[in-house]
Amino acid sequence: MSAYPANLLEALRAEPGVKLSERATKDADWWPGDAPQDKKAAEKRMEQLAELLSDLQERLFAASVAGGQGPAVLLILQGMDTSGKGGTVRHVLGMLDPQGVKHHAFKAPTEEEAAHDFLWRITRQLPAGGLVGVFDRSHYEDVLVAKVKGFATPDAVESRYGKIVDFEKQLIEQGIHPIKVMLHISREEQFERLSARLERADKHWKYSPGDVDDRLLWDDFQSAYEVAINRTDNQGAPWHIVPADQKWKARLCVAELLLATLERVAPDWPVATFDVEQEKARLAAAK
Amino acid sequence: MSAYPANLLEALRAEPGVKLSERATKDADWWPGDAPQDKKAAEKRMEQLAELLSDLQERLFAASVAGGQGPAVLLILQGMDTSGKGGTVRHVLGMLDPQGVKHHAFKAPTEEEAAHDFLWRITRQLPAGGLVGVFDRSHYEDVLVAKVKGFATPDAVESRYGKIVDFEKQLIEQGIHPIKVMLHISREEQFERLSARLERADKHWKYSPGDVDDRLLWDDFQSAYEVAINRTDNQGAPWHIVPADQKWKARLCVAELLLATLERVAPDWPVATFDVEQEKARLAAAK
Repeated sequence: MSAYPANLLEALRAEPGVKLSERATKDADWWPGDAPQDKKAAEKRMEQLAELLSDLQERLFAASVAGGQGPAVLLILQGMDTSGKGGTVRHVLGMLDPQGVKHHAFKAPTEEEAAHDFLWRITRQLPAGGLVGVFDRSHYEDVLVAKVKGFATPDAVESRYGKIVDFEKQLIEQGIHPIKVMLHISREEQFERLSARLERADKHWKYSPGDVDDRLLWDDFQSAYEVAINRTDNQGAPWHIVPADQKWKARLCVAELLLATLERVAPDWPVATFDVEQEKARLAAAK
Repeated sequence: MSAYPANLLEALRAEPGVKLSERATKDADWWPGDAPQDKKAAEKRMEQLAELLSDLQERLFAASVAGGQGPAVLLILQGMDTSGKGGTVRHVLGMLDPQGVKHHAFKAPTEEEAAHDFLWRITRQLPAGGLVGVFDRSHYEDVLVAKVKGFATPDAVESRYGKIVDFEKQLIEQGIHPIKVMLHISREEQFERLSARLERADKHWKYSPGDVDDRLLWDDFQSAYEVAINRTDNQGAPWHIVPADQKWKARLCVAELLLATLERVAPDWPVATFDVEQEKARLAAAK
């Protein structure tokens, strides 16, 4: 795996024609030299990231308060059961100000949702300007579970890849910048994590018998992910494949992706929309 | 102020016939002996609180995942401009898992909202079971700003106190447990904070000329708060008056209130809705 680039963000990119079976879920070999090399170093970097993210998030938020609809960020988290989507939200998005985060976890569509186009319910959960949106599962379920379990016809699934590309292009035009992440775990690691959930009474609520049903379709899901990623990866809305067998690495990767995006899109502090000197005088008069 | 009780939570309670002018915004005298006595001790307690809150929040969340609509908590934050509502969300709610927090900041009603009863928009933002909801301003604006600025007739305002009491009673019956907090700052401290916002270019976005307009109505607002608190305080949905001139004390108080409520209402870990041994066997077969 020495073919991986030295830069973390580049290492996470889904290259054209990516094969998931060739992407690391854990091995240290590919872990780039510019990233923290152990958990302790990662914790230190996470503390830095918390400060950097906090500052940028406030600037993102400020821009929309001051001047209408500014840019937004949308983190799209996909991955097999137990891949760490929830933990990523808790530990990475947990570093941000809750006022600036809009989180939504997509479940099986309700009757009302199923009666609309698959992107209808997605659109309703988009972050407003200034916010960091987080989708725990997303429109990609409509080309993943829908394909594997036959909830949609092959033709319908086929038509959705292009619709998703167009949709995400429109998002960017609206100022909503997607960060597409697949948390990539190994079949072995999933076994360990599901076992742990069954062992501990305080983890039972995280387990569903459907998790084993899906596990039995592991190869079909991997293949559906591979097709979905290849068909919807593009320069404007690239896919990132985050090795997720080790939680500390996965969380660090997502935090770095978030930082890179915020650095790119967060505007500078907005200019006052009022006369500062005049307001100082008014305030002084109201002392 | 030696009449204050020794217990922090009791000290925060609005006693019947409370007079805001007699409630501390800062003085050390009333700060109870059971609370951390300085900022450093408070930081330590906040670290403890973060862990305790995190565990209880997960249990609250788990109950609703496992068995339909469980209880929820609703933190209602009121206070004059610059009293620290946003900072409280950032620093106190920021200790929780973003997946379990539903935050909403109420602004001036939109045209659609204004065409409905004043509680309509409030109802739409209630937390689902399992969540900690946070209202930055709330239905109380409809008896505060509405009264002070004459946005509603005196009769309409008068009728709302009772409606609010009934509404909050219904919330509790639905399993939504309100924590009503007024962040109580002094007129002098507001001057300092507004000045700071005008001094720093990266704080201009937090300032609005309307803040001085409202400051000029300080006494009217205090009086409206006092009436609102007295008319809507009750055993089931009590008011808490949090001294807010010192941010570290205010944040600690809100965190303690949140802890006390979660301790009271968060259910135990839910019992598995599936046959654990059978699932272990199914998982083993899918190794």
